[in-house]
Amino acid sequence: MDVSSLIEGVLAGDRRAVARAISMVEDGARGLAELSAGLYPHTGQAYTIGLTGSPGVGKSSLAQHLVKQARERNHAVAVLAIDPTSPFTGGALLGDRLRMQEHATDRGVFIRSMATRGHLGGMALAAPEAMRILDASGKDVVMVETVGVGQAEVEVATATDTAVVVVSPGWGDAVQVAKAGILEVADVFVVNKADKEGAQEAARDLRHMLKMGPASDWLPPVVLTSTVSGEGIDELWDAIEGHRKHQESTGDVLQKRRDRLLNEVEGMAAQEFRQLTRGALEADSELARSLEQREVDPYRAAAILLEWASTPDPHTGS
Amino acid sequence: MDVSSLIEGVLAGDRRAVARAISMVEDGARGLAELSAGLYPHTGQAYTIGLTGSPGVGKSSLAQHLVKQARERNHAVAVLAIDPTSPFTGGALLGDRLRMQEHATDRGVFIRSMATRGHLGGMALAAPEAMRILDASGKDVVMVETVGVGQAEVEVATATDTAVVVVSPGWGDAVQVAKAGILEVADVFVVNKADKEGAQEAARDLRHMLKMGPASDWLPPVVLTSTVSGEGIDELWDAIEGHRKHQESTGDVLQKRRDRLLNEVEGMAAQEFRQLTRGALEADSELARSLEQREVDPYRAAAILLEWASTPDPHTGS
Repeated sequence: MDVSSLIEGVLAGDRRAVARAISMVEDGARGLAELSAGLYPHTGQAYTIGLTGSPGVGKSSLAQHLVKQARERNHAVAVLAIDPTSPFTGGALLGDRLRMQEHATDRGVFIRSMATRGHLGGMALAAPEAMRILDASGKDVVMVETVGVGQAEVEVATATDTAVVVVSPGWGDAVQVAKAGILEVADVFVVNKADKEGAQEAARDLRHMLKMGPASDWLPPVVLTSTVSGEGIDELWDAIEGHRKHQESTGDVLQKRRDRLLNEVEGMAAQEFRQLTRGALEADSELARSLEQREVDPYRAAAILLEWASTPDPHTGS
Repeated sequence: MDVSSLIEGVLAGDRRAVARAISMVEDGARGLAELSAGLYPHTGQAYTIGLTGSPGVGKSSLAQHLVKQARERNHAVAVLAIDPTSPFTGGALLGDRLRMQEHATDRGVFIRSMATRGHLGGMALAAPEAMRILDASGKDVVMVETVGVGQAEVEVATATDTAVVVVSPGWGDAVQVAKAGILEVADVFVVNKADKEGAQEAARDLRHMLKMGPASDWLPPVVLTSTVSGEGIDELWDAIEGHRKHQESTGDVLQKRRDRLLNEVEGMAAQEFRQLTRGALEADSELARSLEQREVDPYRAAAILLEWASTPDPHTGS
């Protein structure tokens, strides 16, 4: 399949074309620029939701419940699970199959996990590209779910219209949330496993800490959920909808989307620049040797790389 | 204090100079290039150890125990805790005071947490810079500890000579480790809270999964520790020493250091490039408008930025 047929397929909502296009992002394939050019004019319709939280708090189950909520409201919905699963467990594919089973015959649902090791920009650049493919394919709601709760994962999950941070009573208390630096970036908090001991306390602590934070026109709601009993899922959907309406009324949603896009383009250009200058720093290059010998320090070496890149022909330039 | 006095102070091992220099890294201060140039020739002596794992598994307590181990062997030691603590909790400073109490009168110990929000390159670029300062100040062992276990945190902790991944029985099982993609990057595994239920099983599962992994000349040991009873701490130190001797005998340690350095310099140059091109993408620029109107797609916009940067005078260039 060539890229132009692939673009047609994605725009028609063809599942195999969408899967194929996301694999291209995953692998950092050559045709990505052409794919992006063809799809980009057809993006901007989907509302995006990010889900982040430590491994084991129940993000995937929550995503499943949110898919049901979306379908009940007749929204076409996609879930993108950013999954750095080790190549020797093969968990991603197995997980996909399990997740898809329930929705196998529903053409309004697309679930896909994505490893990002082939993409040179890592998950920060791969995720928004994949989300645009899902947007262009006609999904009304695109959810992105990360494994883990580090800086990169939080950046990916908050590069969405509504960022949902999930904790569980077993995971640790609200102080851990503060330590992880995710208190300020959440639009909605979920305390999952609401049936477990300590859930009410975790929710209370979170609410307390959020109130101590800087004043803002949006105070993130804290929702208690149980993915076993289904408790709180309606409230979670309402909280997300509430945030959507709030920022659509203020115009913040468009402003945030523009800022994210500019930031992403800067990151893409920096990544390309990195590729361009790679040759100058090969292991046997003079610059690498000077660095190793400690004749040139890292800052100076970086400055030399920048000069090298802006010389019209780097191979003959001074 | 000007930068040249600061360099002298750091090289003399003066605590206030070291603290000041690390603050400069934290803030991304102007004098960093000069500081780097002055200190770099005096680096390369310290052995570096990374500690990573989910919040709450006990990394800080383990670091304290490892400090004692290092002091018993007469090593000067530093701990750098990379801490994205929210500005409204102020946890970092409080934490530092608590951590330092025990070693307040020991000039062979330096403990410092570092927020990295002011540094444009984030923790990936700030951490190695701060570690070089500690190295130049005469520390034999430099430990870096991250909060959280995401992609960026794992990268920082594994950009060390020996990467230690810490789990606890309460944190989740070995499968979570595999899902987080940290199975392949650890040189030593710790199951902390060895007195808790499930510790032996977690260690056994980890060993099993490690054996299933790709063949390598180093099989990461799995050490059970308790920071309460002190159990296993000697074994942990021995495991780290074992890894050190192993890679010193193969020469891997030098190779890995060189690769990390080149990678870091590439990242620094890309970050500078990003700063350089920022103006071209200001919110009211033509390029930003074209992106918003979907007339130019993100790939094309990134390519335009690259062209812009390599034009001799971007402001008058075509």
